[in-house]
Amino acid sequence: IPRPVLLPSRHGGQPDACRSRELHHGAALAGAADRILLASDASAIIEHTNQVIYLEDDDVACIHEGRLSIHRLSRVMNDGSSDSGIREVHTLRLQLQQIMKGNFAYFMLKEIYEQPESVMNTMRGRLRFDSQEVILGGLKSHMTEIKRCRRLMLIACGTSYHSAVATRQLLEELTELPVVVELASDFLDRQTPVFRDDVGFFISQSGETADTILALRYCKARGALIVGITNTVGSSISRRATAGCTLTPGQRSEWPPPRPTLPDCRSGHDIGSAAAACHHQGSLEVLPEQIKDVLTLDSQIQELAKDLHQKRSLLVMGRGYNFATCLEGALKIKELTYMHSEGIMAGELKHGPLALIDEHMPVVMILTRDRVFPKCMNAMHEVTARGGQPIVMCHRGDTEAAAGSKSCIEVPKTVDCMQVLLNIIPLQLLSYHIAVLRGY
Amino acid sequence: IPRPVLLPSRHGGQPDACRSRELHHGAALAGAADRILLASDASAIIEHTNQVIYLEDDDVACIHEGRLSIHRLSRVMNDGSSDSGIREVHTLRLQLQQIMKGNFAYFMLKEIYEQPESVMNTMRGRLRFDSQEVILGGLKSHMTEIKRCRRLMLIACGTSYHSAVATRQLLEELTELPVVVELASDFLDRQTPVFRDDVGFFISQSGETADTILALRYCKARGALIVGITNTVGSSISRRATAGCTLTPGQRSEWPPPRPTLPDCRSGHDIGSAAAACHHQGSLEVLPEQIKDVLTLDSQIQELAKDLHQKRSLLVMGRGYNFATCLEGALKIKELTYMHSEGIMAGELKHGPLALIDEHMPVVMILTRDRVFPKCMNAMHEVTARGGQPIVMCHRGDTEAAAGSKSCIEVPKTVDCMQVLLNIIPLQLLSYHIAVLRGY
Repeated sequence: IPRPVLLPSRHGGQPDACRSRELHHGAALAGAADRILLASDASAIIEHTNQVIYLEDDDVACIHEGRLSIHRLSRVMNDGSSDSGIREVHTLRLQLQQIMKGNFAYFMLKEIYEQPESVMNTMRGRLRFDSQEVILGGLKSHMTEIKRCRRLMLIACGTSYHSAVATRQLLEELTELPVVVELASDFLDRQTPVFRDDVGFFISQSGETADTILALRYCKARGALIVGITNTVGSSISRRATAGCTLTPGQRSEWPPPRPTLPDCRSGHDIGSAAAACHHQGSLEVLPEQIKDVLTLDSQIQELAKDLHQKRSLLVMGRGYNFATCLEGALKIKELTYMHSEGIMAGELKHGPLALIDEHMPVVMILTRDRVFPKCMNAMHEVTARGGQPIVMCHRGDTEAAAGSKSCIEVPKTVDCMQVLLNIIPLQLLSYHIAVLRGY
Repeated sequence: IPRPVLLPSRHGGQPDACRSRELHHGAALAGAADRILLASDASAIIEHTNQVIYLEDDDVACIHEGRLSIHRLSRVMNDGSSDSGIREVHTLRLQLQQIMKGNFAYFMLKEIYEQPESVMNTMRGRLRFDSQEVILGGLKSHMTEIKRCRRLMLIACGTSYHSAVATRQLLEELTELPVVVELASDFLDRQTPVFRDDVGFFISQSGETADTILALRYCKARGALIVGITNTVGSSISRRATAGCTLTPGQRSEWPPPRPTLPDCRSGHDIGSAAAACHHQGSLEVLPEQIKDVLTLDSQIQELAKDLHQKRSLLVMGRGYNFATCLEGALKIKELTYMHSEGIMAGELKHGPLALIDEHMPVVMILTRDRVFPKCMNAMHEVTARGGQPIVMCHRGDTEAAAGSKSCIEVPKTVDCMQVLLNIIPLQLLSYHIAVLRGY
């Protein structure tokens, strides 16, 4: 007897990885199940069953005397297609192991430590290091259209928004198109004008972020080309996008996820300059090793966390590509440690935020070397002139950047546009350790 | 004997309001002055003299035995013109009264209280309330070009950047053009692609903000149309712009200035829909009275400040037009009170910042009614569900918005796009009173 589980569709299935039976609308499930579990995510029930039915938007599930039936008010689905009238019973291929913590104390730590592997999985089959080719199957047939567009819009929320901020500059550089980055909620609030020759990239790890989906619908209704970038095959965004890219299909086991890796960077290669792409690919090849390298900083960062965990506020400052590092680092600190943390564009220091700096305010400054390094050093001097004692993140052995710092987080060097992928890791670890020390 | 004063050019003169003598390069000032004062701003020396010489970029002033001479390495000026070799001695028309505090305890308070008048001065001669016409002399002859452009870029720093954020939606609505808002420093860091059919609006109260000027040069070199929006005739941005708008020429007496008022709103009218413009004009006419009305909240806000001034952090939340109110309110609180304050897009609450909310975290929520009011109420419920006790800013008598608030700041209602001009005032007053209570 199957034990079906109702999952709301918003946590997506993996249709291509399933065999199926069917449940017709209005008909009760043949052979009543001995137990019916309801869950919002597969990981919550995988130890009890691997047989699931996904509910679609607007489905009404009725369970009566152990019998399940599904009804709808309308035959039209949210994506405009007509309802098939059928809900398949899927068999999850999810391995229990995928959602177990293993030897890690917390899921978050496991996910941080899995980044070398997840980055490698993301590149597998898409990058050929020997011929220096990039193949993004889901975008390939739309490249002409994308290249001819009026502008690229990157639309997302939270961490995905920060990944858009991180890649904006590279996309601008490689495509020479106007690139705008939008918070999905604000984009909708403003009822932004959208045109037929716009291309919208919708970024969401789950593929189910509500505001991002609404923004996708808004743009689709206005004729823009829709590109989805998610980690989840079969998610709402994947299904509604015209073109797209699924990065690391797999199970998200706990909130919050580490940032999605490399999405736009690689679409950028696909879209843009071959020369730049080759250059970056050499760096992509060694990236997983470099991430492992950064992870060895863990115990040093744990010590730093001991100094910081009783503070009220923490500022993270940088500019250029690393403005995204600051925003994302501050968000992780906020949501894990409940400490008031803010990512600050170092270029805006003198227009206000400098007032916050004194010897008591903890500051992390991102000072890895890139085109804006001299400007970042100016910010560093403004901070130390006010008595600030920043924790500096810089390249290994960079004594100029480290001078005047309270302590120093040394990371390996990669090309400018990818440095954010390394720089964010110490901040993930820092937020994790502060959270543990604070007892959360 | 004239007593010349050297002012760096970056604080601009008012050439149209001056009679002049001249000082030729390399030649010493005829008839040595009895005293030479050096200052960065006219207001610092107006009680001693009204005779000044403005230094241009790259000028070298040499004072030896009471004699002044001015030298340059190059005859080419920064704006590309060739140097005339002459520095005029200007007579300032500045009235001592303009830079005096009058009956106000501090300059900031005076500037806050002068807003009804400065808004009226900004509209005078530009708006005809009877015929509902808007005339912006400096933009008129470029309107065709602006309307045909590929996109509008609003580029600024600090408070001016926030005024751009505040008006983006209105410009999008009225022009149906893509409108991007850029921090000047980040815009430069990214080496953003700019095109001949772009229009750049450069907003700066002094007209001398370094990054904004650099961004202007960057865009000008790429052939974009340059529009300057400043408060200062003769400033670097005014001089370098092809078209422009000077809002309230006058003396800035102290840092920080209240936000520039109404710039884009009114260019918007000029550019866009006549129907919307008429509607807004009725509201513009009563705006000065409404500002006076908001200013009567002063003593209530002083009481609020007593509750808040010993807190470590303060969050300001809102969305839609009022996201700009949040950013600007938080910045004013930061720079005046040295308290960690952050403006938070209410739509992003669930993607992280909600973690900060508990019964101890002071929160100001902007809940004036506009298109996004229901979404803001959702945010309000999320905050109160976590034990937060927000201070709510809402329209007078709006009991629904006020329910669940710790206290309530009631403001008069105007059209959505102008509500920010009223809503920011209580936050200016709040930052002022907290700063005074903290002894700064």
